[in-house]
This record gives sequence, C-alpha cells and structure tokens, in this order.
Amino acid sequence: MFRTKTNGELRLSDVGASVTLAGWVQRTRKFGGMTFVDLRDRYGITQLVFNDEYDAALCEQANRLGREWVIQVEGKVSERSNKNPNIPTGDIEILVESLNVLNESMTPPFTIEDQSDGGDDLRMKYRYLDIRRNPVRRNLELRHKFAFEVRRYLDEKGFLEIETPILVNSTPEGARDFVVPSRMNPGQFYALPQSPQTLKQLCMVAGIDRYFQICKCFRDEDLRADRQPEFTQIDCEMSFVEQEDILQMFEGMSRHLFKSILNIDIPSLPRMTWADAMKYYGSDKPDTRFGMEFVELKNQQPDNASRELVDSLFPEGFGVFDSAAYIGAICCEGQAVLTRKQIDQLTEFVKRPQIGAKGLVYARVQEDGSVKSSVDKFYNAETLDALKQKMNAKAGDLILILSGDDAMKVRKQLCELRLEMGSRMGLRDKNKFSCLWVIDFPMYEWSDEEQRLMAMHHPFTSPKPEDIPLLDTDPASVRANAYDMVVNGVEVGGGSIRIHDAKLQQKIFEILGFTPEQAQLKFGFLMNAFKFGAPPHGGLAYGLDRFVSLFAGLDSIRDCIAFPKNNSGRDVMLDAPGYLDQSQLDELCLSVEQDK
Amino acid sequence: MFRTKTNGELRLSDVGASVTLAGWVQRTRKFGGMTFVDLRDRYGITQLVFNDEYDAALCEQANRLGREWVIQVEGKVSERSNKNPNIPTGDIEILVESLNVLNESMTPPFTIEDQSDGGDDLRMKYRYLDIRRNPVRRNLELRHKFAFEVRRYLDEKGFLEIETPILVNSTPEGARDFVVPSRMNPGQFYALPQSPQTLKQLCMVAGIDRYFQICKCFRDEDLRADRQPEFTQIDCEMSFVEQEDILQMFEGMSRHLFKSILNIDIPSLPRMTWADAMKYYGSDKPDTRFGMEFVELKNQQPDNASRELVDSLFPEGFGVFDSAAYIGAICCEGQAVLTRKQIDQLTEFVKRPQIGAKGLVYARVQEDGSVKSSVDKFYNAETLDALKQKMNAKAGDLILILSGDDAMKVRKQLCELRLEMGSRMGLRDKNKFSCLWVIDFPMYEWSDEEQRLMAMHHPFTSPKPEDIPLLDTDPASVRANAYDMVVNGVEVGGGSIRIHDAKLQQKIFEILGFTPEQAQLKFGFLMNAFKFGAPPHGGLAYGLDRFVSLFAGLDSIRDCIAFPKNNSGRDVMLDAPGYLDQSQLDELCLSVEQDK
Repeated sequence: MFRTKTNGELRLSDVGASVTLAGWVQRTRKFGGMTFVDLRDRYGITQLVFNDEYDAALCEQANRLGREWVIQVEGKVSERSNKNPNIPTGDIEILVESLNVLNESMTPPFTIEDQSDGGDDLRMKYRYLDIRRNPVRRNLELRHKFAFEVRRYLDEKGFLEIETPILVNSTPEGARDFVVPSRMNPGQFYALPQSPQTLKQLCMVAGIDRYFQICKCFRDEDLRADRQPEFTQIDCEMSFVEQEDILQMFEGMSRHLFKSILNIDIPSLPRMTWADAMKYYGSDKPDTRFGMEFVELKNQQPDNASRELVDSLFPEGFGVFDSAAYIGAICCEGQAVLTRKQIDQLTEFVKRPQIGAKGLVYARVQEDGSVKSSVDKFYNAETLDALKQKMNAKAGDLILILSGDDAMKVRKQLCELRLEMGSRMGLRDKNKFSCLWVIDFPMYEWSDEEQRLMAMHHPFTSPKPEDIPLLDTDPASVRANAYDMVVNGVEVGGGSIRIHDAKLQQKIFEILGFTPEQAQLKFGFLMNAFKFGAPPHGGLAYGLDRFVSLFAGLDSIRDCIAFPKNNSGRDVMLDAPGYLDQSQLDELCLSVEQDK
Repeated sequence: MFRTKTNGELRLSDVGASVTLAGWVQRTRKFGGMTFVDLRDRYGITQLVFNDEYDAALCEQANRLGREWVIQVEGKVSERSNKNPNIPTGDIEILVESLNVLNESMTPPFTIEDQSDGGDDLRMKYRYLDIRRNPVRRNLELRHKFAFEVRRYLDEKGFLEIETPILVNSTPEGARDFVVPSRMNPGQFYALPQSPQTLKQLCMVAGIDRYFQICKCFRDEDLRADRQPEFTQIDCEMSFVEQEDILQMFEGMSRHLFKSILNIDIPSLPRMTWADAMKYYGSDKPDTRFGMEFVELKNQQPDNASRELVDSLFPEGFGVFDSAAYIGAICCEGQAVLTRKQIDQLTEFVKRPQIGAKGLVYARVQEDGSVKSSVDKFYNAETLDALKQKMNAKAGDLILILSGDDAMKVRKQLCELRLEMGSRMGLRDKNKFSCLWVIDFPMYEWSDEEQRLMAMHHPFTSPKPEDIPLLDTDPASVRANAYDMVVNGVEVGGGSIRIHDAKLQQKIFEILGFTPEQAQLKFGFLMNAFKFGAPPHGGLAYGLDRFVSLFAGLDSIRDCIAFPKNNSGRDVMLDAPGYLDQSQLDELCLSVEQDK
C-alpha cells in the first residue's frame, strides 16, 4: 500500500502519529518560508506543510510540484493553528518528512474544482479528469449506493437478480433496435434489448416468482437532453400478484431508498388516477410539490380525462372563449404583483411553438377584492367575481386562463404554464420530494397517424377486470392495470399487470387491429410460452439514471453516468463509434453503402 | 395476492390454519376416493388433498388437472398421517375447500423433474420450462446470492460499482469484437467491450480509488463448452496498491464467498509461482485437490518453468529416453493394480491428438518392493530402484512417465495424464475446494507464429521491480506482477499491477516490437490519459459464470446462465440472431454480401 491513511480521515485525535499519504496535488501555496500543499483523493483533502528552515531541499522539491501531480509523503500529524472548519480534516496538517513524486501531470485542460472552468464538451472529452471533481464523483457515489440499496431491499424481499442476455432478437417495443451482425450466422443479426420485457415475463413462466435486474437497455433514437442510447433500468416482475401487491412492494422500496440514502421519511404515496392527473395537472406525471390545480371554466368536450360537461362560466361576448371547447385556469397565489411586462413574457412563453397556445388571458385580484382582467371589456363585475369565487382566489392572486378547441391540447399548454409559474414562484425546490402513483391509465390511445387505437403501455397490459365488458362496447374508455411512479413531475418508473389469459390476449390483439396471423408473427414466441402454464404476473421498471438524477438534484441524467454519450450518440472520450477495417466487414459479410 | 403462503413454508405448527396457495401442478395421484395433488412453486411442494366423499364435484375438478396447470386453492392445513421426511412441508397437507384454475397448460415437452427426460437441445429451446426444474433454478438462486455477496463485500471495503458503457470502441484485446453499426454516424461502428480494462484504468486516473463492476463482456470467438459469446465478469481495480494489497483484498473476498454461500472456511490461500506450477503440475492452473506432483527425471532444456539442469536418471539404452530433452513422471498411489488393458487405455488417452504424446512408460512397484516396468529390458534393477526412490514410490504404486523433445509440451501432456488419474482415483471431489494464487507469471511468451515476444497478460502489466534490469539483458526471463486465482484447476480470476510510468511503458512497447508511432496508434488514448497524473494501480477480474459453476459443481458454465447460447452462438429459445428487414439495413447504410 502506498499510504497508511486516506486524505479524508485524519482528525485532532491523530496528532503526533506518523502517517504515509498519497494523492493528487490540488494546489500549492507559499507563505514566507512555508509551502502548503493540499493533497486530494476520493476521500478528502489534507494539508501538507513544508518548512524551508527545517528542510530546505524538501521544501524546494515541494515548490516544484504542479497541479494534479501524484505524490506520496511521510510525515507527522500536527494540530493546525489556523483551522479550516469547512473540511473534516481542517483541524490538522502534516509536517512532511519525505516526498516521493509517483507521477507528474500535464496541466489539466480545466480546473479540478467544484465549479470548473471547463465547458461541457471539454469535460466530456477529458471525463477521467472531470470525475476527479467532487460534484461528479459524488453523483457516482450516490449511484453506487442507490443501486446497492435497491439490491438490498429486493434481496430481502426474495427477489432473484437474473441476468438476461444482451445479444437477443428484435422485439416489438416501438423504438428502433441497435443490431449486432453475427459472424457465425452470416447475414443474421442480434438486437440489443430495448428492455428485458419479454425475458422477464418468461422468467415468470419459468417460476422465478420474483425477478429483478439492474441492466443496460438500448434504444437507437434521436437523442434529447435526458436520453442516452444506452441507459440503465431497474427491471422487476412478480408472480401471483395483483396491482395492489406491486404498488405496496415498490412503495416500500422507494421509502427504503429515500430513508437509507437521503435520510428522508416520505409519506405514504398518494394515488391519483390518470384522469385526475390530466384533469387537474394536464400531465400523466404531475409535479405535486405544489398545488395550483386546474379549474375547468368550460368543458364541452368530455373525454377520458374529464367526463363532466361544464357550462362556460363566461357569458357570450368574447369570441375566443365563446368558440372554445375548453377553458381552463390556474390561480397563482400572490402573483398579482406581476408587471404587465412579466405577463407579456408569460404570454410569449405559452405562444412558443413547443407549447402552441394562441394567447393568455389573465385576471388580477386587487387589494380591494375587485378583479382586473385582460378581458374586462367583455365581462361585467359579476362574471369576474364569479371567476374569483370559482378559482378560490383572494386579494393579491393572479388567475391565468387558457382556452382552445382541443381540451387535451389546452391542458398540456396549461401544464407548461403551471410548471413555469411554479418555477418562478420557487415552488419546485430540488431538495423537496413529492412522490405519487398515477394509476388507471387508459388501455388505448387513438393514433391520428395510424387511424387506430394503439396500446398506451404495451399489448400485454391487462385491462381492469371491471372494464372488460367495455372492450366490446367502448374500448377507448377501458382502463388498464397500469401504473407509474412519479416524483417531482418525473416518471421514475412504470409498469402493469400482464395478461396471462390467452383468450383475453386474443381479444386485445383484435382491438389493436392485429389478425390472429399477425399477432402470431409478432408475439407468437411469448404466446407459445404462455401455453405452458403462465402464472398471473405483473411488474414495473424504473429508469435508474433518472431516479438517481432526482436524488442528486441534477437537471440532466448525464452527470450521474460515468461515461455518457453526447447528442449524436458519440462517446467523445473514447471517440466511438469509429470505422472498421475492411477485413472486419468482410468477416461479417457486410459492406457499407457509402452513397446513402 | 393470489396466495397467503408459498408452497415451501407450511409446517406442523400451521395445522388448523386456513390458507390460500397457488402454483403449478407437479403431479396428481388417485387413491380410492382421494385425489392428491403436489403443488409446486419456487419455494417448494405442498400436498393438496381432495376427498370424493367430502366434495365429489371438487374432487372431480381435481381429477381433471393436468401437469403444469396453474391453480389456486383455499383449504385447511392438516397433519399428514403418512409423512414425507424428504421435503420440509412433508408433515402437512392441505384439505382443499375450493379450487381455481388460473391457467391450463399443454403437456410440457419434457418432465419437470430433477432428472428430466429432456435432451440438451429441447431443454434450451424451452428454457422457461427447464428453469422450473429444481437443479436449474437452484443454480440461478446461487448465482444471485453469489453476486450479492460479492457486492456486499466490496461495498464494505469502499469499492464503488461504476457502470461503464457497452457501446464502446474496438480495443486491442486480442479476441474479435462484436460490433454495432451506428445509424447516426453512418459507416461507423461501436464495439461491445471484451472487458472494461481500459475504462477501469481510466476510473483510476479519475480518482475513483476502488472500482468494481459486475458486467457483461463480449467476445466473438468460436465457442467451446465453457465459453459463451457474452459472459459476466467481476471486474475490480484499486489505486495506490501493490500486488500484496490486491492478493489480501481478494483472498478476503473469496473467503467471504465460501463462508457466506457454502459455509466453508477455506484456509489461507497458498501462493505458487508460475514456474513451480508449470514444473510440478504442467499447468498455470493446477488442480491442487490432490498431489501427484511431477518429478523431473531428466531436463536438458532449462526454461522459465525449471531453470535446473537435471541429468537423466536413466543410463543410455532406451532410445526414446536417450534422445529426450525432458523426462517427467508422476507416482499414482496404489494404482499398481491397474491391468494391462487399463494401462493401454491410458496410453491411448495420452496419444490422442488433443494431447499428442508419443507413448507412455509405466513402472509398477510390486508387493515385494521390486519394480516391474514396460522398459525393463533396457534397465537393470538398480536403475528401477533409483526410479522408485526418486519418485518416493512404495509398494502398490504406479509410476507413469512421459518424455519428449520439448519440455513444456511434455509437461502439458503429463498434466492431462495427472488430471485423468486424479479423476479415476476419485481425487477430484466437487464438494472439496482447493484454492491458491499462482503468481510471478512471465511478462512475455514467445510466439512462433509472430516470431516475437508477446505480452502474456496484456501490455500494461508491470514487471516485478527487481526484474526491471533484465528487460535489457534477458527480457524473456522477466517476471510480471501478475497473478491468477485458481480453484480446483480452474482459473477463476486473474489480474496484474499496471504500469503507471510512461517511460517504463515505452520500454515495454519497444520490447514487444512496437514503434512509438504504432504504440501511439494502438494505445495512445490510454497513454494520453496517463499523462494527467495516473496513480499506481492494479486489479483483477473474475469470471462470474465459472466461479458460480464451481460453487454449483457444474461441468459447464451453461447451467448457471439463465438463457445461454449454443455452440453456434444461437439462442435457440429466442431464435436469435435473425434476419433484418431491408429497411433496417438501409437505415444503417449496410448491405449483406450474400455471396461470401
């Protein structure tokens, strides 16, 4: 061992001890005849002292040290006169007796500090230096602990971690597969799994009873900030269970994670139906750290989210509202102070193409309780007062109203506005956590593109037993035994109870528009396995990267991944992907079509 | 939940309780008016009883149950009159009050019993049924526990599990890479990692200090019985360590695994030099469950394994021995009883092309202490007695002798013979474990093919400091800081201390015949990272599949893998690999050359 102690462990009680330390030079400072070196490793920083009077040659050696050099020192632990209360080793320093340079270092391309001067691209190219920085390293430590606590909880509950293969076949999951040419089977390809969905269901057929796996999944999609071509999933499945069993089991896991990692006791997870989530938050992953729920001021377009017909609060007069199928509003507490300019910014915000609202109507509740609105000229004081009552608004509040032809579209716009207001009002604190289950998802959603009902989750998802009769009469209204876990407006996990009954599965395929032959072709493999005694089963999967990011308070999943890829799917550190030798292509019986 | 208890947990103390059970029908038996059903799940088997007199309709229902049907029953726990001491639930049975068929099953293609009637191919095709069998399921349970205990140990020692990417670039590891075409970077390919070797060394540069990962690795090789195209590695690396630190840390891990999983206290691991392993066992992974070490009767070809010149024990006379460069022998205790026919079989065994010996000389020590040998006519009694003395043989022992021109080749032949004799003599008990470290591997081995020295481990392996001067004078004799952990003749893991000094690395590349430009091209990426302060570091990697197989007493790694591939790299259950649609190939700018 090149050290007897790490740089994070020495305390006042160690004063007088002889120690050997090793690590990286964080910085050196000269004060008169003294040279101070901050020595860093994963565990902390320890101050080294070299005294010119005591050993001039050694001090001279120390003066030549550069940033990020790797050194080993022997010395005595001594009490610091000038203590540093900000670090755990701040009470002591090492009076160095010998210094051994283990490796020199070129000057790193950015500073190895909590706040680095390196841009994103540079940090990714030299990720091995970026990881030396505390914030990045702490994320990786958190990720390790998170995964370990997941395993500890599931192991205690009798789950078996089963490794499923990475070289599999294409599965009907929707997204595009990464493929791997097989040299031994020329012209044929493996696919990398988008998820082990099929294999975990086979594990249930195999009698594994309780399965989990923390595993890599792969999707060849165009990337967004929070997507990576390879990502890590906590994949779980249980047999002989109903929805309630799954919710209980994994609510318990979340509670364990929050407690063991963040020392936070989270309350029992509320359950919100998908309909309520859409009606009151315009999202199937509502951020419930704050209220500001939607109020329907008019709804002439009842749907799965809100079956209630709501007559308009507004008498005829304002054409936009008159012709709208849906009018919804939020009440922003104390925001009547917003200036006209700030409200104009909000109007611009909702009119951005990504959101797509036509405009924004507002109403301020003034100190005297009267209401000033951007549509004052169309409505009298009674109407505006009715609005105030309906919105439960009080003096100083700001009411924001959106309307449109398509209730679901307006809800999504209002959702964005609500989140924006929540952020501006400081209601989305990263250190506060609000978890819930969203349940009772619809089985199907209508695809304008395909002009048919599509499975909202996947085609193996079981309908709610009480809704099965509706499969014949009104399939679009059938609810599924599907559920998502949502934390702070982020879907961290989701799953469903699966269909284990062949006849019911057949019916679901029919509704999705598959002929028996098509169903056999696409899903036959799993269906055949199910003929040998499939137990009732269900499960869910968490996105580990996202869940850890939430715990770490990160905006992107990238910084909790050791070696992430950029938005072009490149690993700029490894410089992957790259070109193959012709001989490799020949062995695989492949040629690249350069002209395409 | 479809059950209140599993099929493995009810005991005499539960008698009288009302329970709900669910599981698979293992078998049904009719005895007079009674029907007995063995209900199975992952946790065990519970006997169900249906009584014709008590409820004829229910009993009739039970009589219709088929093998592997999935059922749910309610009933009362009752003491069995005819107890079954072979199963933990053998004291009780369930008097069934209601029966619910959850799913029917087709007749499975093989019996779901410990000893199945299914051949390998059938079992692999229906692996989800094979896993229902106790022996296979137990292997997966063992694997789960093994991986969990590895993580528990390493977590306690401060190791961080860091996930490294699966989509990487080609690395110079020797074997062939699997590759993945990149749609977003047309004509370019990712490679799947053969191991995270480079990435874990970068983790050390990144200051992670103690890294591990249980991860999938990929090699596109022609497969043998104990090879899979994807396999799982326990990959570990530490900073600021010397060889001794690594050996201590991972000896501790092995001890923890044997104790926590098999409840075996293994003794401190002996350390054997590579030279001794080759000299006395003819293998760098000696099976030390038994002795039968080689005795050199002549060695005119000193090498890294045995630098000692040994004059022949045999006077001139027998041409084969006279011209041999090396003569080695083993003494098989009590095996003088072998018949001529049995010895002929052994001769055939060593003459098989895979082993390649020219012949086998034997000598029996008879009851009176005299020696009868197949080469009696060439030697007098004194020589044979000298042989007996040299071999430390006693009455009843059998001496087996091989010779040849190439000492190393003969040692390997003698190794095979020793293992064969060990098996025949019952000395290779799967429930007995003999672990050791093989250390001091040579840095290089001569390649006849390439006509140059090749790195035995990999080119980043550090030489033993005391051997560094030999790099200039006699590189072939330089020993490395490399080590393997060997259990029962299986290399379960291995690793080395890495070079962190750029100048030494340069020298090693020179000896391997790389110009600085070639070295930069092939290894520049890692070398450049090392310029920013690489700490001294080293590590090792275990083959999880092999290690678990040993614990499970399996002959092949396949049965501790949930969904293995066959020798053509096919997953016969998933029917992977398969053909792609033309549109997929087009998106990837690839075409398959059908004529190749």
